[in-house]
Amino acid sequence: MKMKRRDFLSKTAMAGAATLLSSPALFSGSFRPKDKLGIALVGLGYYSTDLLAPALQLTEKAYLAGIVTGTPSKAETWKKKYNIPEKNIYNYQNFDQIANNPDIDVVYVVLPPSMHREYVVRAAKAGKHVFCEKPMAPSVADCEAMIKACNDNKVKLAIGYRCQHDPNIQAYMNVAKQQKFGKVKMVTSAAGYFDGRTNHWKQSKALGGGVMGDMGVYALQGARLATGEEPISVFAQASTTRPEIYKEVEETMMFMLEFPSGARASCQTSFGINMNYLQVNYEKGWLKMEPQSGYNGNKGSMSDGTIINFAIKNQQAKQMDEDCAALMAGTALIAPGEEGLRDIRVVEAIYKSVKTGKVVKI
Amino acid sequence: MKMKRRDFLSKTAMAGAATLLSSPALFSGSFRPKDKLGIALVGLGYYSTDLLAPALQLTEKAYLAGIVTGTPSKAETWKKKYNIPEKNIYNYQNFDQIANNPDIDVVYVVLPPSMHREYVVRAAKAGKHVFCEKPMAPSVADCEAMIKACNDNKVKLAIGYRCQHDPNIQAYMNVAKQQKFGKVKMVTSAAGYFDGRTNHWKQSKALGGGVMGDMGVYALQGARLATGEEPISVFAQASTTRPEIYKEVEETMMFMLEFPSGARASCQTSFGINMNYLQVNYEKGWLKMEPQSGYNGNKGSMSDGTIINFAIKNQQAKQMDEDCAALMAGTALIAPGEEGLRDIRVVEAIYKSVKTGKVVKI
Repeated sequence: MKMKRRDFLSKTAMAGAATLLSSPALFSGSFRPKDKLGIALVGLGYYSTDLLAPALQLTEKAYLAGIVTGTPSKAETWKKKYNIPEKNIYNYQNFDQIANNPDIDVVYVVLPPSMHREYVVRAAKAGKHVFCEKPMAPSVADCEAMIKACNDNKVKLAIGYRCQHDPNIQAYMNVAKQQKFGKVKMVTSAAGYFDGRTNHWKQSKALGGGVMGDMGVYALQGARLATGEEPISVFAQASTTRPEIYKEVEETMMFMLEFPSGARASCQTSFGINMNYLQVNYEKGWLKMEPQSGYNGNKGSMSDGTIINFAIKNQQAKQMDEDCAALMAGTALIAPGEEGLRDIRVVEAIYKSVKTGKVVKI
Repeated sequence: MKMKRRDFLSKTAMAGAATLLSSPALFSGSFRPKDKLGIALVGLGYYSTDLLAPALQLTEKAYLAGIVTGTPSKAETWKKKYNIPEKNIYNYQNFDQIANNPDIDVVYVVLPPSMHREYVVRAAKAGKHVFCEKPMAPSVADCEAMIKACNDNKVKLAIGYRCQHDPNIQAYMNVAKQQKFGKVKMVTSAAGYFDGRTNHWKQSKALGGGVMGDMGVYALQGARLATGEEPISVFAQASTTRPEIYKEVEETMMFMLEFPSGARASCQTSFGINMNYLQVNYEKGWLKMEPQSGYNGNKGSMSDGTIINFAIKNQQAKQMDEDCAALMAGTALIAPGEEGLRDIRVVEAIYKSVKTGKVVKI
């Protein structure tokens, strides 16, 4: 076969790039680098159905290659809708055979939180890179086990922190990094919505529900990302105004954080209240975001007149494209497992504070 | 002396109105009703000098009739500047003789908080109505003693809650009253400023300092007035980033409130942070104020597009005019001693929470 010079150079460059890669999974059987990584979504609930699958129609570095579901009717629907080959459709029993499927480069775990650990570990053992939805897991021990499994199997782990890929969120993160208005003094961070569902995993303790891991992680990230610091203590109060629905887990969580610099944060999250905003007061100015963690339209303003209002096509598409680009280039992920663990460490302390009624050191 | 019919009717009407009045102090020696009440300011610090005295040049129902000060040079300056008769100038020793001065209808106590009780009680015993600056006093016991002294002496007690006279604040109070957006679910209320002073009563425990009683009462009122309810529990954390200045009292206080309806509030106040805002999330909408407790320019917006932005000439003038009008008409005061007590009851619980590290029931 005759090879043109351009093709030769291209293949040589790719071979060079390939040495940077941590996993053979990024290559097709012929070891030719892919231009898009194949993603298999595990768990076909609302987030996969309404957000991730549509986003994967817009991605440039990723495509919907496979699905893992326990519901045959969903498999059938998705197969037709997204033209997914039968061989790329798994259930929870035969999931581990995904190891032998070169179409699947990344397994994206979109299951209820209590199942994250099992499926991240199984995906890692199958030699696949893993994306995992937030909250990373119900406990620090789970998160550590997930990180270890990925390290042991030489695959990467990214948490589905779409917001950290959003330039509007990055804008306020940068204000802290650059000390644009001096030190951060006080943060108020709220994230909640009225959830009318009555029998969802978000209301089940066994499945990892409760508002804290779900919307609460956005309220927490507002404070962590706005300060650029990790909290050293927390006090939290859990409450419920619909005890008939929130029998096992909290509907609302309020918590106060203390940071090493002396900055303080007051955070609120709820499945009973529509709210989504961030207010940061610095030594010499302020910043506001509202919404602060929406799927789109995050925007804000600062005391010097700066407006934060970057348009992005699709947040989840940007997240998956950037994570896949990092996997292909062997560069750092924006939100690796360690970042998910940082949140869960605080979440665990928050529940401990609720239980003890006292401030908990982190 | 010949009396015109108009004069006769006028005097008859006034005599009728007089029966509504609770104290003879509202009349001059000749028992002719005054058109303006004479106010004596006790304590000539910043607030009297820069806010109340100028406001008393604009009032229609009150005028600056006298002063009480321990500093002879201040007495001299004020006497000249405001044309105050020598006989209406008192010091802290001869203050009680104010009882015999028909020019003074109201004693306005503008001293450090730890001195409020003594001077309110002495003013009440002198038969004068009393205005008292916020915080009403350092303890519930003090407040109760002040209320009792005024009741016993048949004089009225108003707390200098200028904000409750501000139509911008009344606008958000009405939203809760009318349940415009349904129940209140979550309130965030912040009030603070960077105080560069190093040796002020605000930094002295003995004088009733600490941010909680000062700016903290605005943060607390934001939550109380936005819900229209009294809190039933509180958790609070005190902190200080300038321990060399805030040796005796807190620079910053954060507290979480629980209300009978299930509404929750998160409040922050500080002498180290410029911040002044209120955010209320209701069942079916939201309201924001910023600033929420300024001397002027308080303004806000609501989720239905309503703008809150009433122009007022002078907040303190409006407060004193309305309080004096109520005294003259014998009608209810907007913020009587009982309203000051409501705040101090929470403030006391806040300090108890700081001391115990636990949630305190109120």
